[in-house]
Amino acid sequence: MLTLFGNLDSGNVHKVQTVLCRVGESYRRVDVAQTRGEPRNRNYLAVNPMGKVPAVLRDDGLVITESGAILYYFAQGTALWPEDLDERTEVLRWMFFEQYSHEPTLAVMRYLRHFADDPQRHTDTVAALEPAARHALEVMESRLAGSDWLVAGRCTIADYALYPYTRSADSIGFDIAQFPGIESWLARVESQPGFIPFGSDGAVETLTFSDYFES
Amino acid sequence: MLTLFGNLDSGNVHKVQTVLCRVGESYRRVDVAQTRGEPRNRNYLAVNPMGKVPAVLRDDGLVITESGAILYYFAQGTALWPEDLDERTEVLRWMFFEQYSHEPTLAVMRYLRHFADDPQRHTDTVAALEPAARHALEVMESRLAGSDWLVAGRCTIADYALYPYTRSADSIGFDIAQFPGIESWLARVESQPGFIPFGSDGAVETLTFSDYFES
Repeated sequence: MLTLFGNLDSGNVHKVQTVLCRVGESYRRVDVAQTRGEPRNRNYLAVNPMGKVPAVLRDDGLVITESGAILYYFAQGTALWPEDLDERTEVLRWMFFEQYSHEPTLAVMRYLRHFADDPQRHTDTVAALEPAARHALEVMESRLAGSDWLVAGRCTIADYALYPYTRSADSIGFDIAQFPGIESWLARVESQPGFIPFGSDGAVETLTFSDYFES
Repeated sequence: MLTLFGNLDSGNVHKVQTVLCRVGESYRRVDVAQTRGEPRNRNYLAVNPMGKVPAVLRDDGLVITESGAILYYFAQGTALWPEDLDERTEVLRWMFFEQYSHEPTLAVMRYLRHFADDPQRHTDTVAALEPAARHALEVMESRLAGSDWLVAGRCTIADYALYPYTRSADSIGFDIAQFPGIESWLARVESQPGFIPFGSDGAVETLTFSDYFES
């Protein structure tokens, strides 16, 4: 069975969980949390030298990391990865956009506001990131105002990749009702088969960090 | 002929130039510079609503953006994109790693130090980014200390994607001699057929922003 390393608070881990559940891959999950510094733990670095979650370990020992690469891998042969080259390129375009436009803005704002030790200390940083985060949402809105899905007229891994940090935008102060295209797209993603809400666990078994690495 | 939008100071534009030249695609280049605010110009947003460079316009009007997606597209059918799924996934892994680990650290440090209006004002920010930038270089070094290339034992688009901001690390204070695996890999990338140095132009014709958008 596959082993997924990562915690439920991570949007990047959520992307992987939703796609694994959607394509019907069973997996156990090892809880690895940034808030406990575990991605830089020596034992974990032996799994993923990049020091980040998520990572997926196959039974043959191969480790796949970076959520975008994991999504690409598990979408092969499914409708989540289009046949057409232009559409494939467009899927990757949105996924790379997310890494550059959502991660350093929406994801960082969420982390500083909800998971950092002293959120008050980061008020200025969060405020400074707001315009770039808003721009990322406006780019998505301009696409989703006229289209049910980001690419190819149907759900692809691009939608799963953009979902979690877009979903959490309201928790950092954005009024999602101001982005009606995004709002209905979020509901569309959530109605997909096997969808797991952000924060929920889709694993058949969950192990703590110490259970896995110290036993 | 293809049209590439972007400026010579951008690492993301360099990635695209090296791959277009490597695979033998001729292109003209329209100079679009972040330092002049041109990516957010209304005319340019009609080309790329994401408001970023690079963008590539095909003769049929289709626009491809996000350097990672552009590299994927033009590498199809060449040795720069492996046949094997595990190797393809590994190529994307490194490319997504770069977007998350090089862009917000090495690329931002370089921008603040060499292109911002008042570099002195950003001294603290640059210093704060140093540990994460060093970690990105250490991850690469741990791979390249024992391997000529990032993936599959040969040059792929992963190498071109990681090249420019790694190349520029010495210009922001890193001593590349401390990373011997990276140092010899940089020379290996530079010795590839059709290689264009970071900062050089590989276009058959170059137009200014106003030449293209106002005529």
